[in-house]
Amino acid sequence: MSSEPNASSDPVALDASDPLAAFRDEFAVDDDGVIYLDGNSLGRPPRAAAAAVARVVEKEWRHRLIRGWDDWIDLPRSAGDRIAELVGASAGEVLVGDSTSVNLYKLAAAALDAAPEGRRVIITDDDNFPTDRYILAGLAERSGAELRMIHTDIDAGLDPAALEAALGDDTALVVLSHVAYRSGALADMRAVTGLAHAHGARILWDLCHSAGAVGVELNDSGADLAVGCTYKYLNGGPGAPAFCYVRSDLQTELRQPIWGWFSQRDQFDMGPDYSPVDGIGRFAVGTPPVVALALVDVAVEVTQRAGMEAIRAKSLRLGEYARALSEEWLRPLGFHLASPADAARRGGHLTLAHAEAWRIGQAMRDQGVIPDYRQPDRLRLGFAPLYNTYADVHDGLRIIKGIVEKRAFERYDTAHGRVT
Amino acid sequence: MSSEPNASSDPVALDASDPLAAFRDEFAVDDDGVIYLDGNSLGRPPRAAAAAVARVVEKEWRHRLIRGWDDWIDLPRSAGDRIAELVGASAGEVLVGDSTSVNLYKLAAAALDAAPEGRRVIITDDDNFPTDRYILAGLAERSGAELRMIHTDIDAGLDPAALEAALGDDTALVVLSHVAYRSGALADMRAVTGLAHAHGARILWDLCHSAGAVGVELNDSGADLAVGCTYKYLNGGPGAPAFCYVRSDLQTELRQPIWGWFSQRDQFDMGPDYSPVDGIGRFAVGTPPVVALALVDVAVEVTQRAGMEAIRAKSLRLGEYARALSEEWLRPLGFHLASPADAARRGGHLTLAHAEAWRIGQAMRDQGVIPDYRQPDRLRLGFAPLYNTYADVHDGLRIIKGIVEKRAFERYDTAHGRVT
Repeated sequence: MSSEPNASSDPVALDASDPLAAFRDEFAVDDDGVIYLDGNSLGRPPRAAAAAVARVVEKEWRHRLIRGWDDWIDLPRSAGDRIAELVGASAGEVLVGDSTSVNLYKLAAAALDAAPEGRRVIITDDDNFPTDRYILAGLAERSGAELRMIHTDIDAGLDPAALEAALGDDTALVVLSHVAYRSGALADMRAVTGLAHAHGARILWDLCHSAGAVGVELNDSGADLAVGCTYKYLNGGPGAPAFCYVRSDLQTELRQPIWGWFSQRDQFDMGPDYSPVDGIGRFAVGTPPVVALALVDVAVEVTQRAGMEAIRAKSLRLGEYARALSEEWLRPLGFHLASPADAARRGGHLTLAHAEAWRIGQAMRDQGVIPDYRQPDRLRLGFAPLYNTYADVHDGLRIIKGIVEKRAFERYDTAHGRVT
Repeated sequence: MSSEPNASSDPVALDASDPLAAFRDEFAVDDDGVIYLDGNSLGRPPRAAAAAVARVVEKEWRHRLIRGWDDWIDLPRSAGDRIAELVGASAGEVLVGDSTSVNLYKLAAAALDAAPEGRRVIITDDDNFPTDRYILAGLAERSGAELRMIHTDIDAGLDPAALEAALGDDTALVVLSHVAYRSGALADMRAVTGLAHAHGARILWDLCHSAGAVGVELNDSGADLAVGCTYKYLNGGPGAPAFCYVRSDLQTELRQPIWGWFSQRDQFDMGPDYSPVDGIGRFAVGTPPVVALALVDVAVEVTQRAGMEAIRAKSLRLGEYARALSEEWLRPLGFHLASPADAARRGGHLTLAHAEAWRIGQAMRDQGVIPDYRQPDRLRLGFAPLYNTYADVHDGLRIIKGIVEKRAFERYDTAHGRVT
């Protein structure tokens, strides 16, 4: 591996020596010249995606009809086993299905129900992703639990001291994002899990911004529970189903609140009483979304083939290159880094704050660079190691520089529209 | 419309005068000669399905990337509005997303939470679909409510007198299937809804086996809530997302328990507190499953075009033809009708009981006729008016007759496998 990229690195040379360069060809990339820096919101389609949906619709569904279930029934687990490999879990610990929000609800409710008497507090942080905060608020309200919110700096990420101060023998569950959605700050999963456990609490990690971007050590850290999405760095497609992780020794202890028939023992006996299966299938609910699962399966296979070590190595280099260029080009124009400066403390995206971030983002889109905007004044730049190039980083940041230098953003409306 | 089919009707003539005959061409039907009598479990793929997934994956996702959300975001409601038209609801009352089980959980929990003090009983029946019974049992257990189970005859369907006897001023919610999954018995939605309301209870209808098969009068009956699936008669594909209906005047009163970000007002402000939108969007949770929603959308469009009146008319005729043939051919062979004899009291499927039903079903599959098996001894024959022909009915039942006459089922194993 060559030395760390810096502001004077040649992007062409960096791309030429990129061991993952060939993976860009595994994605269906339009030749419209768009520089896509939002794979952390919605990954690009793998080339295999079109064939996968065609296979399910035109072969399996059309020809096998109801008999297709002989194979489809395994998809939530088999796609889960693929993801398990990427997040440091074991086979049989990850299940794909439902949305991230529904999975978070199921697992958090299960953990709360199983908590020892006197432990009725859920801790999360005020910079956690909105759906996490809202789901937990709803759960707390309905169950009489307390939601205790710790403060997280929106640039620096989780403060373990704040967590430690909030933990007590009243704590049932800690719910945190491994990579902060806004700053990209990466939490120390091992240390933070240890902290929660030292106080007798369970921990549930949200891996939405980590899966496929950074190495995750679910088993090695001793983490109890996790959820994550597949439509960001895992490229599973818009609204692709999420996954949940339940450490194997907890699977029988926990019972989730949505007692759907796909978690029922001898499901097709359709017996009178609910009796959930052992194992990760216990956390299934309704009929698995077959077409979407097939997309997840082929998409995750690409990531598996590249390997998380190579992905993380390139992710760090893309991020450092972007940080170096932004220091040189953008800091003088009023930007500040709204992510940790230390690459090891960041996930796969880099966030830059600027008072005109919203309008700059609009101008970027019109100039063919797609970033993400996040409140209150942040441009979030996602670098997907499987298809983003160093040239994407270089050219993308150069275009931002040009927009701000020429004040080309001024003709855009300050009123915020929707940005997913 | 010609007279009712009977056992001596000519299937070729019946098909020749079928006003919906042309719709079979709108489905991707393999020329393998399979007689598919299980569209009530998984509908056939509409021809438009392959193009719809290709469009989403190869055009919208590939080209628009994150910008695709400008349009995708409307899919849960626009597909819902299409379904609303089929089930007697108004625009803005139906939302597509999540599984039937998750939707049932959300709506039942919301109704229970909103029930007046002292109303802590949920009533359902012991022949309701398993996931309904299990979901409600879980909800009752976690909330301290009581689940009161009324008895339903598995051939005759819901007994309104049993419901009336169970209703009281302690009842919060009644949850029933409009068409019974096993017998196909059709409940009188208007009368039963009136019964629940007369006792001050809300009612939630499960429309899984009615949507796309029989006319549903949600608005006219005064029904409060409903859920239903889209992969049976609506042909949305394996594991397609389900829908929920919340009568417009109840939408603001009710609050569902899974406070996901897609129900949040000014969602992308990502503010500190959960404040759900008004309207049916209040019942959304996580990121909508775009590819699956596109499939639902094109599939439901076919049903809309055919119209529920024509569909129900043909459904009744297919069912009566099957009943007449089974009386003539199958009753002498030990079958009995396990559905109401009166066509007006049946949904889209007909169920035949036989002590050897499991093995007969296996033999049928091997002879190219695909039925459904249901415990304890039932063959469930689904007739999908959009693609099933009178010849399917005639030939399918003739093959059953042959199997039983020749005792061709005897070489199959009596051990039950999985039948979805």
